[in-house]
Amino acid sequence: MNYKKLDDSYYLVQLEIGDEVISQLKSFALTHRVKSGFISGIGAIRDLTLGYYDRDKGVYIKKTFPRCYEVCTLSGNITYLGEKEPIIHLHGIFSDQDYSVIGGHLFEGTISAAGEFGVRVFPCMIQRKQTDADLKPIEIK
Amino acid sequence: MNYKKLDDSYYLVQLEIGDEVISQLKSFALTHRVKSGFISGIGAIRDLTLGYYDRDKGVYIKKTFPRCYEVCTLSGNITYLGEKEPIIHLHGIFSDQDYSVIGGHLFEGTISAAGEFGVRVFPCMIQRKQTDADLKPIEIK
Amino acid sequence: MNYKKLDDSYYLVQLEIGDEVISQLKSFALTHRVKSGFISGIGAIRDLTLGYYDRDKGVYIKKTFPRCYEVCTLSGNITYLGEKEPIIHLHGIFSDQDYSVIGGHLFEGTISAAGEFGVRVFPCMIQRKQTDADLKPIEIK
Repeated sequence: MNYKKLDDSYYLVQLEIGDEVISQLKSFALTHRVKSGFISGIGAIRDLTLGYYDRDKGVYIKKTFPRCYEVCTLSGNITYLGEKEPIIHLHGIFSDQDYSVIGGHLFEGTISAAGEFGVRVFPCMIQRKQTDADLKPIEIK
Repeated sequence: MNYKKLDDSYYLVQLEIGDEVISQLKSFALTHRVKSGFISGIGAIRDLTLGYYDRDKGVYIKKTFPRCYEVCTLSGNITYLGEKEPIIHLHGIFSDQDYSVIGGHLFEGTISAAGEFGVRVFPCMIQRKQTDADLKPIEIK
Repeated sequence: MNYKKLDDSYYLVQLEIGDEVISQLKSFALTHRVKSGFISGIGAIRDLTLGYYDRDKGVYIKKTFPRCYEVCTLSGNITYLGEKEPIIHLHGIFSDQDYSVIGGHLFEGTISAAGEFGVRVFPCMIQRKQTDADLKPIEIK
């Protein structure tokens, strides 16, 4: 992972081939003490694990896609569960060599060619509620 | 709807289960006297009405999708028709439980599980032209 | 193309019917001496050329789609190859009249009805590496 601070509140984050997206962005948030932020990125990815939230059961249905995809868009936010655990909440759409697409909540994915992200950071901490359900809602005080 | 002002020009807007997206963001724009802005969001949605613009006829072809979808991305802008009517122009992509997707111009949609939006606001009013066509172009003076 | 500077670092860029997206945004970057930036847009487009990066061969596989599509989202960045050639790196998703979608790296596309873009600019130049491969990685110094 490389990064460059573009101004007071914006980072360019470049993930490299082999970087796992969620864990690397989590590590970025911890290292730079990001309290909250918005993320938007493009690139190319493989070994995707996507989720669809089953509201009735309160759980994510997950599936892994081993092939390589273009990241058409990945966007979402940085919040916290408690004071110390950043949550990278990203949804994305991914295209195949025939330009067809799949999409969902990104649980895991490894950069296969490029990973170019913009991260807009904010000075206030945004937390998620501690619940039994897989989906942790944002807590706005 | 909950919200938090993150800095001078950025809001986190959290829509709640049952909130209709377009009308709630319109209400947000009116309440906070947003003159223009950009919106980006993720979440989960149901009872979608999507549009495709038929340029030859000058009208949107609409279809309603009653099921629940992940919001892979919703993005667009806030402008005005006249001085008092905010226009929420959002396009989005929505994924199913098998990770297949649909997309288009969002006319209506109700939050089914989460609705997490970033809204970047600006001090100048941007208006759309009053025309007979369904598509109202932005008016840049 | 029309544009409006919304604040110190943000432009609204409106592409018009018949404007080719990549060349017009390149022209915008040169005219306004944009050193680096992030782009996000929606609208309607025709005569798309999309790419999928074949990592093994180091080249993009391209295909042209002549029909009209809604731009569900187009996002990416402005960087430079050398000091004088802006690179508009955009990925997108495009929906049809039946709300089905295609996606990938945008090489070319012409606005068919509307083109509404937000461009966030930064004061530092970001360059891409000069390589033999079609994909030029960002160079972070």
